[in-house]
Amino acid sequence: MTPTLAYAAVSAKTPLAPFSFERRTPGDEDVAIDILHCGVCHSDLHTARNEWNNTLYPTVPGHEIVGRVTAVGSRVRKFKLGDTVGVGCMVDSCRNCQPCTDGLEQYCDKGFTGTYNGSLYGGAENTYGGYSSHIVVRESFVLRVSHDASQLAAVAPLLCAGITTYSPLRQWGVKRGHKVGIVGLGGLGHMGVKIAAAMGAHVVLFTTSADKREDALRLGAHEVVLSRNEDEMAAQAGRLDFILNTVAAPHDLDAFLSLLKLDGTMTLVGAPATPHPSPNVFNLIMRRRRLAGSLIGGIRETQEMLDFCAEHGIVSDIETIRMDQIETAYERMLKSDVKYRFVIDMATLAASAV
Amino acid sequence: MTPTLAYAAVSAKTPLAPFSFERRTPGDEDVAIDILHCGVCHSDLHTARNEWNNTLYPTVPGHEIVGRVTAVGSRVRKFKLGDTVGVGCMVDSCRNCQPCTDGLEQYCDKGFTGTYNGSLYGGAENTYGGYSSHIVVRESFVLRVSHDASQLAAVAPLLCAGITTYSPLRQWGVKRGHKVGIVGLGGLGHMGVKIAAAMGAHVVLFTTSADKREDALRLGAHEVVLSRNEDEMAAQAGRLDFILNTVAAPHDLDAFLSLLKLDGTMTLVGAPATPHPSPNVFNLIMRRRRLAGSLIGGIRETQEMLDFCAEHGIVSDIETIRMDQIETAYERMLKSDVKYRFVIDMATLAASAV
Repeated sequence: MTPTLAYAAVSAKTPLAPFSFERRTPGDEDVAIDILHCGVCHSDLHTARNEWNNTLYPTVPGHEIVGRVTAVGSRVRKFKLGDTVGVGCMVDSCRNCQPCTDGLEQYCDKGFTGTYNGSLYGGAENTYGGYSSHIVVRESFVLRVSHDASQLAAVAPLLCAGITTYSPLRQWGVKRGHKVGIVGLGGLGHMGVKIAAAMGAHVVLFTTSADKREDALRLGAHEVVLSRNEDEMAAQAGRLDFILNTVAAPHDLDAFLSLLKLDGTMTLVGAPATPHPSPNVFNLIMRRRRLAGSLIGGIRETQEMLDFCAEHGIVSDIETIRMDQIETAYERMLKSDVKYRFVIDMATLAASAV
Repeated sequence: MTPTLAYAAVSAKTPLAPFSFERRTPGDEDVAIDILHCGVCHSDLHTARNEWNNTLYPTVPGHEIVGRVTAVGSRVRKFKLGDTVGVGCMVDSCRNCQPCTDGLEQYCDKGFTGTYNGSLYGGAENTYGGYSSHIVVRESFVLRVSHDASQLAAVAPLLCAGITTYSPLRQWGVKRGHKVGIVGLGGLGHMGVKIAAAMGAHVVLFTTSADKREDALRLGAHEVVLSRNEDEMAAQAGRLDFILNTVAAPHDLDAFLSLLKLDGTMTLVGAPATPHPSPNVFNLIMRRRRLAGSLIGGIRETQEMLDFCAEHGIVSDIETIRMDQIETAYERMLKSDVKYRFVIDMATLAASAV
């Protein structure tokens, strides 16, 4: 067992604060990783505050992890000491069911083991995430990071925000010649814009904020549509091959479904706390459209995404924070006051834990 | 011009009654058809009573037409005098847009011309449907019927109820080895059961009516689930490859979406007058499921469906009525008191029009 420094919430009502626990001693198939950077995902906040009513306390959030390998088990073949690696939302799954066999561990029939707030297989142990000094993860859930060393903080958000947008774009075959809508320009949306553009698509960014127009174009969008402007929306009617909708707040899905071409799909990657207005069935019937959902991505696909992003020079736009700024970051995140992802410099953990 | 006897509604408040009008003289590409049988679709009722607020009066419903060719234009090649033919929901489309070029006339960018209550291209003329003695239709919208002569009345509903269920089953690749759910056992649902079973699928029929169990099994279902029985529903969770949902009344879509496997699709073919309860986005996200819509089928696919049904001995289960029984049939249809489609014997039209 290895003593580990972390930030944890001990209840839904208490702020994150320094916390110590022990990581398991690396087994034969484990990789031990010193955590360099950890992105701040909205799920961290939901879990810290028990907003999904499923939090096991104490909880150590964080599933956008980039770090350096400090030890490997005897049977580990893919990684060696000093490698730069990533860990995303999952640290294990049943490894036997059809989805796991197919590399779709996120849809594991028995439920994957979350990087935090998850039960490890074979035990009732709670998992502790990336707001910590180091982590021990089974080799098959560790990702290679080939970005330049100067980019590692900005790579961290790829492990959740990146794969969550990459996976549905790949799943629905986005490619050159396609016109793709991205709804919302936040942590997920800004990755969607970059990745869809790198796939060769003509990217239309939909936002309610006129002041995001310049930024969207800078990030790679070819067009920006203010979704509250009826004329701008009408001009896109029936023109999009695919829409990636990253907005979790309840909103009118029909306004976007009606922009899809025949056989077009809109994939939702955010689930609202209260339902969206019910989509109009005629909008689905009249052009054989589809409304779909997507959950992060499998490990194989996450590696593919990291390699794709490295090849295309894609990282997240980030703001770096110290570990002891996490509660302020949460408050700003709730006001969408971040462009576009907070990443914790984990070198500040020791000082923050004094 | 040819004098034509029909049944029409002259307003939303008046019952259908005898009506005379003139069909166009067949042009070079037209086929003139004596109507033998016409199925009664719920859309007929919606249109007669202006429930979609788009009815042009007088209106002559009917788009499940089987008849015999009485004349062909000089350029008609596919049909000759005496042929048995069908006409479905469409009698024309723009013929130039991408969907039309792809044989998906039902999704014509300019809107297809309905067999009734549609405007003919190049004119403001209202179209009159199959509750009439004969019809003149462009060759490319006429279908070959190869069923046995004794089955022709029961073939009529294939032209709408048949293709509406066949098309999504084909679109989503239903085949042997698949487990397919059909929701609702009415005019559409009973065709869905027959067709999905003929495609080789294991068919699970979902109904709210325990007294439909025997009938569903007779029609080809392998299992029948009472959708109000939680245990029966739970036993199907995550087990279905595809669901064809034929129920237009508002209902809980989540109860069915949660029965789909990873990457499973539920296609809706009925649009409710008031919205369904909003589907839970988590149900879509957690297994990458899809909610889709589908509208009838293209002409090429309708021919394929008719040939498939002839080959597999599939017709609709029908109750034959006289033309002057149409209003009674509508009332019974509203109470779901029909197994499973009314078909008008058009030989009764002349007597009904006295």
